[in-house]
Amino acid sequence: MLEIKALLVGELEEILSISQNVGVFSKEEVATVDELFQGYLKDPVISGYNYLSCRLNGAFAGYACWGPTALSKGTVDLYWICVDKSFQNQGIAAELFRAVEKKAAEAGRWQIVIWTSSKPEYEQARRFYQKMGCVLATQITDFYDRGDDLCVYMRILEKR
Amino acid sequence: MLEIKALLVGELEEILSISQNVGVFSKEEVATVDELFQGYLKDPVISGYNYLSCRLNGAFAGYACWGPTALSKGTVDLYWICVDKSFQNQGIAAELFRAVEKKAAEAGRWQIVIWTSSKPEYEQARRFYQKMGCVLATQITDFYDRGDDLCVYMRILEKR
Repeated sequence: MLEIKALLVGELEEILSISQNVGVFSKEEVATVDELFQGYLKDPVISGYNYLSCRLNGAFAGYACWGPTALSKGTVDLYWICVDKSFQNQGIAAELFRAVEKKAAEAGRWQIVIWTSSKPEYEQARRFYQKMGCVLATQITDFYDRGDDLCVYMRILEKR
Repeated sequence: MLEIKALLVGELEEILSISQNVGVFSKEEVATVDELFQGYLKDPVISGYNYLSCRLNGAFAGYACWGPTALSKGTVDLYWICVDKSFQNQGIAAELFRAVEKKAAEAGRWQIVIWTSSKPEYEQARRFYQKMGCVLATQITDFYDRGDDLCVYMRILEKR
């Protein structure tokens, strides 16, 4: 049984452990996940960060972090979707993505924006976002580092 | 005499007053300026926000807010440049822009990114950024609101 719900205080260890074991995040990025989670625990509304967890038959399988884009009325940011290595290729990331779409639409928002990297390690992520109906809105050369571009994906939730 | 330096604690009133009197910022945006300034006062390094003030013959004429882009090695964000109405058209914004360029280069960064709006109120700002050598890297439809696009300007600081 697959269950998606708001992440609980006690699940910080799980999300940090998953973030490390997927082998894509740098130390700095794992620290950012931690920092955003602390904001979420303090107050999800003020921090602007929301976490959803996904459990499969009770086991912690993955999480998504998203939140309303600062100063925007229509956009939400999808910061990360992360699925434990042993739970990959079972459609869990897609379920988390659809759950974020639902939350965004319920909040009256009409699009999701995803900032990601052009590095080979993120190719799987980029292909995933395209499969979920996102389009590459722009790519900005050397944004993160030399040879590491910013890729901005957009998912439009409803017809304009 | 024109003097640009790090903003002081006691200058919060000046920056909020200017941010209101330029007539472009919404209440929410003025609140954001305030919030970022509180982070800066607490710790500019941790907050990631840096403020520069510009005084003309001792009078507070304007300020710039900038900071290293999260998770990037090469980019800085220029959040706002704001010049008091009575000091406009005297090249103060350009001096502040050049000062941010200098700070960014000193920090080993090679580009500045500016996120702004496509709304008519920001046309002056967009023209200013273009005049300073920025290029429109992308425009994302309805990002802030229906009919209010995100415009991303980039300024490359050195030859790649």
